[in-house]
Amino acid sequence: MLKPGTLVMLVSQKGKTYFRVLKEEGNFNTNEGVLYFKDILCKNFGEEVLTHLGKKFYILCPTLYDLIKSVKRKTQIIYPKEIGYILLKLNIGPGAKIIEAGTGSGSLTTALAFMVGKEGKVFTYEQREEFSRLAQENLKRTDLESRVEFFIHDIANGFHQQNVDALFLDVRTPWDYLPQAYKALKPGASIGFLLPTTNQVSSLLSHLEKMSFFQIEVIEILLRRYKPIPERLRPVDQMVAHTGFLIFAKKIKKT
Amino acid sequence: MLKPGTLVMLVSQKGKTYFRVLKEEGNFNTNEGVLYFKDILCKNFGEEVLTHLGKKFYILCPTLYDLIKSVKRKTQIIYPKEIGYILLKLNIGPGAKIIEAGTGSGSLTTALAFMVGKEGKVFTYEQREEFSRLAQENLKRTDLESRVEFFIHDIANGFHQQNVDALFLDVRTPWDYLPQAYKALKPGASIGFLLPTTNQVSSLLSHLEKMSFFQIEVIEILLRRYKPIPERLRPVDQMVAHTGFLIFAKKIKKT
Amino acid sequence: MLKPGTLVMLVSQKGKTYFRVLKEEGNFNTNEGVLYFKDILCKNFGEEVLTHLGKKFYILCPTLYDLIKSVKRKTQIIYPKEIGYILLKLNIGPGAKIIEAGTGSGSLTTALAFMVGKEGKVFTYEQREEFSRLAQENLKRTDLESRVEFFIHDIANGFHQQNVDALFLDVRTPWDYLPQAYKALKPGASIGFLLPTTNQVSSLLSHLEKMSFFQIEVIEILLRRYKPIPERLRPVDQMVAHTGFLIFAKKIKKT
Amino acid sequence: MLKPGTLVMLVSQKGKTYFRVLKEEGNFNTNEGVLYFKDILCKNFGEEVLTHLGKKFYILCPTLYDLIKSVKRKTQIIYPKEIGYILLKLNIGPGAKIIEAGTGSGSLTTALAFMVGKEGKVFTYEQREEFSRLAQENLKRTDLESRVEFFIHDIANGFHQQNVDALFLDVRTPWDYLPQAYKALKPGASIGFLLPTTNQVSSLLSHLEKMSFFQIEVIEILLRRYKPIPERLRPVDQMVAHTGFLIFAKKIKKT
Repeated sequence: MLKPGTLVMLVSQKGKTYFRVLKEEGNFNTNEGVLYFKDILCKNFGEEVLTHLGKKFYILCPTLYDLIKSVKRKTQIIYPKEIGYILLKLNIGPGAKIIEAGTGSGSLTTALAFMVGKEGKVFTYEQREEFSRLAQENLKRTDLESRVEFFIHDIANGFHQQNVDALFLDVRTPWDYLPQAYKALKPGASIGFLLPTTNQVSSLLSHLEKMSFFQIEVIEILLRRYKPIPERLRPVDQMVAHTGFLIFAKKIKKT
Repeated sequence: MLKPGTLVMLVSQKGKTYFRVLKEEGNFNTNEGVLYFKDILCKNFGEEVLTHLGKKFYILCPTLYDLIKSVKRKTQIIYPKEIGYILLKLNIGPGAKIIEAGTGSGSLTTALAFMVGKEGKVFTYEQREEFSRLAQENLKRTDLESRVEFFIHDIANGFHQQNVDALFLDVRTPWDYLPQAYKALKPGASIGFLLPTTNQVSSLLSHLEKMSFFQIEVIEILLRRYKPIPERLRPVDQMVAHTGFLIFAKKIKKT
Repeated sequence: MLKPGTLVMLVSQKGKTYFRVLKEEGNFNTNEGVLYFKDILCKNFGEEVLTHLGKKFYILCPTLYDLIKSVKRKTQIIYPKEIGYILLKLNIGPGAKIIEAGTGSGSLTTALAFMVGKEGKVFTYEQREEFSRLAQENLKRTDLESRVEFFIHDIANGFHQQNVDALFLDVRTPWDYLPQAYKALKPGASIGFLLPTTNQVSSLLSHLEKMSFFQIEVIEILLRRYKPIPERLRPVDQMVAHTGFLIFAKKIKKT
Repeated sequence: MLKPGTLVMLVSQKGKTYFRVLKEEGNFNTNEGVLYFKDILCKNFGEEVLTHLGKKFYILCPTLYDLIKSVKRKTQIIYPKEIGYILLKLNIGPGAKIIEAGTGSGSLTTALAFMVGKEGKVFTYEQREEFSRLAQENLKRTDLESRVEFFIHDIANGFHQQNVDALFLDVRTPWDYLPQAYKALKPGASIGFLLPTTNQVSSLLSHLEKMSFFQIEVIEILLRRYKPIPERLRPVDQMVAHTGFLIFAKKIKKT
């Protein structure tokens, strides 16, 4: 039996998806009729519930992937295809302490908070209060909020933490903040960047070269989706051609 | 100061990489001269150490990415570009209990063990003892081994666990084990598959359709690497064109 | 000075494009005002002409690329990225005699007719009269129509030509027409196919293997477009993820 | 019956390929035994011939694709996937007059010469005599040589032709030759470029913007090959990740 306060994902047979925190009472509209919380509360994950029109919805527990895709956004978000790779390159796992800037809409923040567990911590910086608020709202839906500290702060003035396990910069001119980032990282730790244009990548690379960063790597990730029809298997017609270039490096001490 | 028993990664300026568990004494050969453990033990991560020929190596703490890339392999391994996405789709995080089959060389096992933390558990099945042993060796290098239970077992006879949070099948004919997988998964939980050929994807899809699986998704991920030269930025000449297709679904209860 | 009867392409500064056959008199509407043929006739290619609102349009001679992109379509068309490669693989050049089926909207027909020159010939087959008519209209805009013979004909009954230099099959079940195609081709000549699904490719391959075809090849072509902004160079956001798989082979005589 | 002087392609069942101009007499070695010209001369295209060890080779007429892939090279060549697209964008067909610089090893030269037919002409410029000679040799194998004029000439001094239908620049700093190229092109005609790095693309774009060029377009083409095995259809393991960026524009007259 599901409990009030639980975040659930309701998916129609056509794939239309709704995220709701369960309440004791009340209902909400879908494009296929009204769903009542009472009806959902007496079910379990994986089960179906019917709208007042008798239309079927499945009750699912959102995965991290689902959470990321569902953040309310006012900015370009970072997508799962990049986030998964970032986690591995930055060594994000239970207990990690990590800095992120900017917060944006909080899609990467959500993933980081999920992965660092209860002993870890995410320090996320954003200069525009509007976005920081939005990200906080997005995190509030989940039970991950307590793992995140939000800062509305200009990172040109430096980060409040030191010796962090990893740092991710998703800002327009990351090369302006490399000294601050270097200072906040623990020795040997990884740093990552997301940049949309090749010119930005060139600028970043030329700054990284001049500092004590090592194992510099530039990649891009493409994801192609297939229509899941066994007898007519084929890629879908359109795909995302570009989100951004990912750049990674490690802090070293040059002598 | 680094301690004996620590797994370190030593990287030359040309990028040649060695993984070693630090010992109190002794040394090992690199292609640029001999490195002494004594010399490494008095350093920290991020610092450099010299070979007897005076060649520089950086001492780094391997990230999850590095660990995956460095598993000794007798099988095709699963690559970081796929692993990152699998983690998000299967909702793998601290505390998760997950089944994987087959174990193979243990690259995905390593990532799962890393992410589930101390409270989580990875149950990994492999029929061929040789591979299971290899994967155990690969895990032993890390401090993640205690989070993994290895089974040398034919999964046609079912899995030993029930109610697991997620399940990943990397076997040649996964459609043969769908009933066993369905039984082991908790309601609403995610299942993933990796398959190299389109024919296998078609077979799997037609079996998934007949059972109580939902949100079936087929994708592939391509990674393109760039030469990190600021004034001559360009993709490298060659890339991996194919590792496999990823298929995901969720267990539901159809009525 | 341009002449009446010439096909021109008029492109606004925003990139909005109109194709028109020039007339002695008259005008036509654009989204930025009216253009008068008189005004265009006293210009040359590469020059600008103004609408009655003073908006600038450039007068261009459509390239083969432009012609292909501008065919009126009732079917999925074959795109330039595939057509270019098909020309090379099928050895289409001045003087070639080639069969194509089905005609569809005539995008490939246009390219073939362009390349075979005055001494060459394109024999194009289509079962549905509606599409054949449409393709004929599309060809009529150009001066290429005389190089093409249109057949409204079920190719199950065979092709009317023999000893052709190449043959392209863009039909749903090409494996049903391999004997007919084999018969029409001259020895050693190339055959090509476009198929959207992997299942169709598998079917075709298994039929090709049983017949006297050699150098069988399956490929797909992806095209990524960049925003042409020097200081913010980056791929565009979306791209075509799939048009179809191209399959090629050569007719041989097995003993 | 084949004739002496004909260029043929001999392909073993394993796919090993030899190009030879047929002679009245003599023989040549393959990796599967000796082939005699006498044996080949009494055959037709598409037929098989046996080596002195009884190994089978098929006699094929090289397609344009085959010719391009077989040019002897001392430089990076332009590949079929790009060449096909270039032909369409530059409107290369029977009768066209086109300038190309640099000649390089002559792979694009071959394709251009093939497509312009007997009434067309290719003017190809190369500063390094060594490459021009190599390209001439590559063209000599075919019967296309008479359609090409080779110039060993520094294009900084301008091109010898005017009013050409199209122009392709495959040089390291094409922006240095834009005035010369503009002068050689007929009004409204297309120009194309191939550049390996993003920095070069940015430089070129900023120069194109300042001149009278229109419809500027930047693309890249990726080709993925599949193993043609019907019951195990899948992409091959490796692919070319990058050859170059293609840039296209049209000459206009700005007022």
